[in-house]
Amino acid sequence: MTAATDPVKLMKQQVGKAAADLVKSSSIVGLGTGSTTAYAIQYIGERLKSGEIKDIVGVPTSFQAEVLAKEYGIPLTTLDAIDHIDIAIDGADEVDPQKNLIKGGGAAHTREKVVDYLADQFIVVVDAGKLVDRLGSVFAVPVEVIPMAITPVMRTVAQLGGKPELRMGVKKAGPVITDQGNMVIDVKFDSIDDPVNLEKTLNNIPGVLENGIFVNCTDLVLIGEVKDGLPVVRKI
Amino acid sequence: MTAATDPVKLMKQQVGKAAADLVKSSSIVGLGTGSTTAYAIQYIGERLKSGEIKDIVGVPTSFQAEVLAKEYGIPLTTLDAIDHIDIAIDGADEVDPQKNLIKGGGAAHTREKVVDYLADQFIVVVDAGKLVDRLGSVFAVPVEVIPMAITPVMRTVAQLGGKPELRMGVKKAGPVITDQGNMVIDVKFDSIDDPVNLEKTLNNIPGVLENGIFVNCTDLVLIGEVKDGLPVVRKI
Repeated sequence: MTAATDPVKLMKQQVGKAAADLVKSSSIVGLGTGSTTAYAIQYIGERLKSGEIKDIVGVPTSFQAEVLAKEYGIPLTTLDAIDHIDIAIDGADEVDPQKNLIKGGGAAHTREKVVDYLADQFIVVVDAGKLVDRLGSVFAVPVEVIPMAITPVMRTVAQLGGKPELRMGVKKAGPVITDQGNMVIDVKFDSIDDPVNLEKTLNNIPGVLENGIFVNCTDLVLIGEVKDGLPVVRKI
Repeated sequence: MTAATDPVKLMKQQVGKAAADLVKSSSIVGLGTGSTTAYAIQYIGERLKSGEIKDIVGVPTSFQAEVLAKEYGIPLTTLDAIDHIDIAIDGADEVDPQKNLIKGGGAAHTREKVVDYLADQFIVVVDAGKLVDRLGSVFAVPVEVIPMAITPVMRTVAQLGGKPELRMGVKKAGPVITDQGNMVIDVKFDSIDDPVNLEKTLNNIPGVLENGIFVNCTDLVLIGEVKDGLPVVRKI
């Protein structure tokens, strides 16, 4: 099977394209992080190049998004130069029926949260495997922490009932370091009954910058599935 | 008047000494930041040198505290090497009757909060001018923010009723940069009615690392005053 006919890749492309199609001319667009979002960035660039849309400016959520936007010809700006974001497109590691999310598998959740929470319309792009009945079913909650506070924060989240693990680097000795120079603790909870309060409780631990629980922010979820070997996109 | 007989300096020395006298042998001591706390660090070092106490190890809250501890011979450790802090001594910019605090005039409030909140006993050293009936009466609330999020965070705190101002450097062009590489927004509120909730609300804004409201953490406040030209220390 070649890459072009790999159904999973085709499905991610379809989801990314469906998200890119929602971007209108003269929009400020939050550009998320991750493999499906990367296709959305590619298709936004292609729509710009073809003249189908014009006057787009992007706000990247990570070094990865910034590099892709440059590659596909999307002009970039910063949050200092704008007073709103029209639409943001980003991935997720888990999505519950209320469209609350766990994000941060790519250690980009702090910048993602800044951008995604600002957007008038926040579109999440995922494959069907990310849907869960309850947040925390599979994925741990990533928590970005300043280096000096790693040990006491791990102790505090354990007292809250979580199992903390310092995220270790691959192709990098020692822990993962975020785009802001901090570390990430992945905290597995048996069950997250109240994501709204857990988000606040984690953020209020001294030394925590941001956690990967995203609540009351998602407007639309585009879900990719492979059915009978063919990619389909549905919405919730 | 020489420095040795300046009543304000003598008063700060007396308060620092009173705090240092509370440190017992074999303690892990959180070392705060600021001019009065600096005297506490000096006197802890002198008590160690004289043999009056022994087996002390310090946890610094800033580069300043680290330098002073080394100067006065206090061995240092990190939060990774210990599982508790016996006593922490730190200053404050405002203290209310419930012993809640505003801190962060020295832009060190993030590390201070990590250390001070961990301490079994947290001692605050101030002069009487720092006492207020209600937090926010005089001082703005310092909020440490990652650089990319400065503008949206300023907008959000204004929506909460605060007047935000980016703290600018002195002897440094542009904004103050914290020991963690971030910036500080000073947010003046007309009146802080509910410091417990304001602390959480500010920490939950995407891009905020930590704010200078410290609640439900202070065990004892040592207050220096000058009466009839003489320094006195009282406790609340």
